[in-house]
Amino acid sequence: MKNEINIGLLGFGVVGSGVAKILENHQEDLRHKLGVPVEIKKVLVKDQHKKRDTALSSDIFTTDLNEILEDPSIDLIVEVIGGTCEAKEAIESSLRAGKGVVTANKDVMAEYGPGLLQLADDNKCDLFYEASVGGGIPLIRTLEDGLASDRISALTGIVNGTTNFILTKMKHDKMSYEDALAEATELGFAEADPSADVDGIDAARKMVILASLAFSTEVLLEDVFVRGLKEIRDGDLELAEQFGYTVKLAGSAKKNSDGIEVAVEPVLFPNSHPLASVNNEFNAVYVYGDAVGETMFYGPGAGSLPTATSVTGDIVAACRNLLMGVNGKRPHAPQYERKVKSDETKLARYFHRIRVRDEIGVLTKLTAIYSSQGASLATVIQHSDKTETDADLIFITHQISRKQHLNIVAELNQTPEVIGLLSHYRVEGE
Amino acid sequence: MKNEINIGLLGFGVVGSGVAKILENHQEDLRHKLGVPVEIKKVLVKDQHKKRDTALSSDIFTTDLNEILEDPSIDLIVEVIGGTCEAKEAIESSLRAGKGVVTANKDVMAEYGPGLLQLADDNKCDLFYEASVGGGIPLIRTLEDGLASDRISALTGIVNGTTNFILTKMKHDKMSYEDALAEATELGFAEADPSADVDGIDAARKMVILASLAFSTEVLLEDVFVRGLKEIRDGDLELAEQFGYTVKLAGSAKKNSDGIEVAVEPVLFPNSHPLASVNNEFNAVYVYGDAVGETMFYGPGAGSLPTATSVTGDIVAACRNLLMGVNGKRPHAPQYERKVKSDETKLARYFHRIRVRDEIGVLTKLTAIYSSQGASLATVIQHSDKTETDADLIFITHQISRKQHLNIVAELNQTPEVIGLLSHYRVEGE
Repeated sequence: MKNEINIGLLGFGVVGSGVAKILENHQEDLRHKLGVPVEIKKVLVKDQHKKRDTALSSDIFTTDLNEILEDPSIDLIVEVIGGTCEAKEAIESSLRAGKGVVTANKDVMAEYGPGLLQLADDNKCDLFYEASVGGGIPLIRTLEDGLASDRISALTGIVNGTTNFILTKMKHDKMSYEDALAEATELGFAEADPSADVDGIDAARKMVILASLAFSTEVLLEDVFVRGLKEIRDGDLELAEQFGYTVKLAGSAKKNSDGIEVAVEPVLFPNSHPLASVNNEFNAVYVYGDAVGETMFYGPGAGSLPTATSVTGDIVAACRNLLMGVNGKRPHAPQYERKVKSDETKLARYFHRIRVRDEIGVLTKLTAIYSSQGASLATVIQHSDKTETDADLIFITHQISRKQHLNIVAELNQTPEVIGLLSHYRVEGE
Repeated sequence: MKNEINIGLLGFGVVGSGVAKILENHQEDLRHKLGVPVEIKKVLVKDQHKKRDTALSSDIFTTDLNEILEDPSIDLIVEVIGGTCEAKEAIESSLRAGKGVVTANKDVMAEYGPGLLQLADDNKCDLFYEASVGGGIPLIRTLEDGLASDRISALTGIVNGTTNFILTKMKHDKMSYEDALAEATELGFAEADPSADVDGIDAARKMVILASLAFSTEVLLEDVFVRGLKEIRDGDLELAEQFGYTVKLAGSAKKNSDGIEVAVEPVLFPNSHPLASVNNEFNAVYVYGDAVGETMFYGPGAGSLPTATSVTGDIVAACRNLLMGVNGKRPHAPQYERKVKSDETKLARYFHRIRVRDEIGVLTKLTAIYSSQGASLATVIQHSDKTETDADLIFITHQISRKQHLNIVAELNQTPEVIGLLSHYRVEGE
């Protein structure tokens, strides 16, 4: 039986320093929970001599990963470097050195998750990654353990705090996209290069992780249909509001006998839907299970301490396994073959905003297009525009296939009276 | 290494039959997750010959608990009998027989939890009880594992589906309490004797379980301050709505250096609070952690399959431990001594609805009472009543102690112009 657990911390940025703070502040609680003390033995950093606001002794900081990997007293590696290449290699080397790994790295887990989990199994090590999705919300653990006995059929969620902050400011404070992004950057919610967030890539990576786990199947980043905030046109948020909807950049993952379907896109949620009122930088994920029905998990999607809480939760779980000698004993091979739905079997309701020349008969012509494609309409509205010769038509369909949607868009684009399809959204609900 | 796991199921009512159904329908998934099949070997029932709609063979039903306890091939007992005495004894005998136990029994866990968990530790057995609180929501696991590294300071939740259903119907469909209760009974949400639900006892038991776990301290049922739906007067829900509040029967548990404070009572939630929009039979629990900040967990609070999902999730966890040979290895002794706050240190905002004789000077007289007790007021409103000589005064205080509240109530009751304090509520928020 070990009488202490030593950690090698890779990275000492926002999350890493949060982990150090929690381990220090909650030392007594952790000792009670585990029976032994948990200590950070070494910290990998880029600059050994940088001034840091920490209680950790300066001589445990090192720039040499091998110094950590070759230290036999270090049991567990916590990877919070971020990025892809260096982090992935560090995780691999740690596992090969027989050390368990806790990581907050969604980029690495989305792209290399299955391989790394296999490597962990092969080396009888744990690889935990709760903090990679949903900041402080214990989502991975819920899917792996809490709902272990259920069959998950769908999962819908707001998994990117930056875009949710931006959309909240645009809706509630009538800010422009640019101003909202600037405020997000100022508050530290958005990166210097916000493209991964606003283009939906960050959310897509998280959905890959959640969907693989929920459906026990391989999911590739290329399987995710992604549209970012750029797709939102001026006036769309207000229009949505008029119809009783709130626009959120949402991830969705569904599974039925046709296969799986994973997407990240701006979605219209009815205002009565609980995700419509998840605001600011908060995240929330709806999980639908065959037996459990609908459940929702809500919490801070980012931030130093919330994310560090998830990392430290994983550290506790990994320590428990180490102390019981059962680390690396949960196999991760997916149960089902990867099978992605075709456009014919992806069903959704759609919102189309179409700018047309305001001529007699144009509405009839356009509704005929929907009919000819077998799409039935829930709502048709002619929206007056500032210009006099043009008008906006809004169509909200009942459930149709993505194929039907694409056919309609193609036909609209060939219709002389149509100036353009200004925007289109999936509408949540059946 | 075992090559199968056999279960003894105690009880075959709503939850028990749900567990049997999930284990049957998800057999393949469970086998993939665990590597071995999980089977129900024997079922304890009261009447062996009753007709049952189940795929289980009739010869596995028995009325003799010993037949199950003495079967060496049975590894795990699932207790879903309900009630207190028989269930508690069955759990004890199972643990003494060296068999792990999964229970959905909140009554037993609230009253005898610490002793039973100790007995489980002593016998190197697991005792899991996720389904005892919050139906299908994995709350216990989240507090034990997901937020293991955080220090929980408060927990607020709607943990009784029956009363939430009744209050939702009263608010949204303007039903009377009696009609709403009748509908709840008809839909199977309320028991034949609904008193444990409507009087807040059921919720109080669940809060005992959650608070002990969140604060790692002993919490007794007598420590919980309980007020039920009876405290709600005609017109209160509408009044609350006028002020932007929704009334929910909520459990709350708080901890600071003064001690802990646990209550179940009708509470006024600002409509912007996420718990205000948790409707019908759904449950939701807000958890505030030092590091993670606010998180919320939402889902079905009752029902056969949701509750059975939690039970089966525990079965999976117990099976994993059995297969790894680490069952019963997590000690449960509380970290902190039990320390309950005094009325002087229990802080809250209060809503008082006071019926008074509509005489000149009465408002001045009453506000003077609040001032003399050092209570500052956030809102004072005179509400016209149908009667001509009486009026209702509404006072909403800023944060005061429960002691101050009690002093004010005592003084009001001695004031000649006061006909009565019609109702009073805690108001969520600071």
